[in-house]
Order: sequence, then structure tokens, then C-alpha cells
Amino acid sequence: MSTPSPREQMTLGAAQLLSRAGLAEASFRNVVALTGAPRGSIYHHFPGGKDEMVAEAMRTVGVRVVGALQRAEVEAPVDVLAVLAGLFRRVLVDSACDAGCAVAAVAGSDAAGPLASQAATEVFTSWVSALTACFESAGVDPARSAGLATLTLATVEGALVTARAAGEVAPYDLAVDELSRLLGGAADARATSGRED
Amino acid sequence: MSTPSPREQMTLGAAQLLSRAGLAEASFRNVVALTGAPRGSIYHHFPGGKDEMVAEAMRTVGVRVVGALQRAEVEAPVDVLAVLAGLFRRVLVDSACDAGCAVAAVAGSDAAGPLASQAATEVFTSWVSALTACFESAGVDPARSAGLATLTLATVEGALVTARAAGEVAPYDLAVDELSRLLGGAADARATSGRED
Repeated sequence: MSTPSPREQMTLGAAQLLSRAGLAEASFRNVVALTGAPRGSIYHHFPGGKDEMVAEAMRTVGVRVVGALQRAEVEAPVDVLAVLAGLFRRVLVDSACDAGCAVAAVAGSDAAGPLASQAATEVFTSWVSALTACFESAGVDPARSAGLATLTLATVEGALVTARAAGEVAPYDLAVDELSRLLGGAADARATSGRED
Repeated sequence: MSTPSPREQMTLGAAQLLSRAGLAEASFRNVVALTGAPRGSIYHHFPGGKDEMVAEAMRTVGVRVVGALQRAEVEAPVDVLAVLAGLFRRVLVDSACDAGCAVAAVAGSDAAGPLASQAATEVFTSWVSALTACFESAGVDPARSAGLATLTLATVEGALVTARAAGEVAPYDLAVDELSRLLGGAADARATSGRED
């Protein structure tokens, strides 16, 4: 792996601030403090200002999640949930439940600029698309896959919110385990009805 | 219904700002602008400052949701989801997908004060408790009810996030409908296995 460029370092710093502290804290000043980047260079790399930096940070997170989903080997619907839930569980655990999803931090804020708002919309759409493809790979009816993908993303995002509020990972695990159980049950029911055909 | 007191009006105004714009925007200044309250009176009513006002706003939202869950007549697990999802769907639709959950706005912010953080934790706990009681009323095994309650809350919270990002209610409805289908399937499976006993 090559060393990240200064622009990449700033982008990753912004993503970390979004994830931990929210949009208001993902400022040029805080990114400079976190990454040690020269203050002048941040204006050079992001002439569109904070809005451009935040949008880029979300896209970076977005591409990583899509890549993980595309590389995942999924044999059943529960495997798809496990991949997404595993990625964000690491964020929770590594931050002692202080951090969540960088994209969600932007989605709920009136202070998001147009580039960041657009990026939030696009990243969530890309995750639902990648999850949909995973559910299809896992043998789910294409007509059903988009619904399960949307549910999976919503559950993981909401579980992050409730776990951060609780300051512990237990609500996250409980929500994910329960959805996993329902997905497993639904798959069993299909398998059973398939055998009966 | 009696006219809300000035303190109640400020609290409701703060809740609306939290829901629509996030914690940073739920300031004394914006509450004064929204409610027309005299600026001096807000310091009188909330000597603990913004932190106290935000905590009170969340508790007000919290009590309303618990009340709605306690009054609901639920005969099946899907009914429990329908009650919570219906409450927040109204928030989404009435705001053209601009607003979400006031409690979630606090849960993900480093800027939340100690009173607000504590209130966020307590309100989510109260919702999970009320949902758990609803699932038990709907005939779900008590050992399973807390898990389904946690999943239901997570899904609704996350569905709000994704719908706000999309600027449309479709992802919300899709996630809720899919969970409803899984809950219905699980209930059918239990009913079937019950008949076979």
C-alpha cells in the first residue's frame, strides 16, 4: 500500500470527524488539527471549501463499503447482513461507541452544502445497489432483493444510532442478530416450500 | 386541550429544530425566532441553558411516543411496527422528508451536553421498553420481545436517515414494508408450528 497523498489524508481525516463528531465538527480547522496538514494546502486541495471536502470524504467511505460488499462471498441472505453489519461494528467498537456512519452525519443536517448532500444521496444509493446485488447472488428473488437491501441498510444505520446513544454495542448486536434470525427464518421457509413443490 | 405554556412552546420549538435541522441549530436564538418567545424568558425557563432545553425537548418527544405505543391495540407483531413507523412517517411526510427523529439528532453529536446525552439514552430505552411490552401484548415470547423491539426501533431510525438522504419517503416505506413482511412470515411460521404441535 502506498502512503496516502496529503489530499487523501485530509479526506480520511474529514471522514473520521464526520463519523465521530458530526458535520459541524468536520471543519477545515479540525481536519488541519487532526492530520497535521498545512492550513494553506487544504484550500488548495479543496477549492470548493468544506462542502467539497465533506463530499469527497463521504465518497471515500462509500467506495470502501461498496468494495467490501463486491468482494464478499455470500451464500445466504444472512451473509449479506453480516458483511455490512461487520464493517460498521468495527467502527463502533474501535471508537468505544463514539463513532457512527459518516454519511448519516450529513443526511440529517440542514448545514450540509449541496455537494455533500448530493454525495450522501449517491453513497446510500450505491450501498443499496451493492447490497441488492449481494442478495441476488445469495439466491434471493430479484423482486425482493432491493427491499431486503433497503431494510439491511436502514437497520444497520439505525442500530448505530441507538448503540451510540446507549454508549454500548449491545443494542447494535441485538438488532442485527434479530434481523439475521428473521432473514434466516425466511430463507428456511423458502427452502422448505421449494422442497414441497 | 389547554394552550401550551411559554416553556412548553419553547420545548416544542426546540424539538422541531432538533428534528429538522440537528443539534447545532437547536439554539436559544433559533427557538426565540421560531416561537416568538421573549429572549429573556428562555434563560428564565431553562437556567441550565441549551443543554437543559434540548434534554427537555427530547423527553417531550419521548413521552409522546411512549404514550402512543401504550394506547395502541396490537394483535400481531406487524401491528407494533406499524404504530412506531406510522408516527415517524408523519414527521417525514409533513416535512417533505426534511425532518427526522429529534433524539437521533442528539445521539450522534459530540456537541451534546451531559443532560441532553443522558436524555437521549433514557428516551431510547423508554421506547425499547414500550415496544417490548407491545410485542408481548401481541403474543411474542418475552425472551424474543426485547430483540424485536430493538430491531424495530433501529429499522425506523435508520429508515428515517436513508429517506432524508434520498429526499423521498420511498426508502422508508420499503424498509418498513420489508420488515413487516419478515415479521408476518415469522408469526405465520410460529402459528403453523403451533398447529402442528
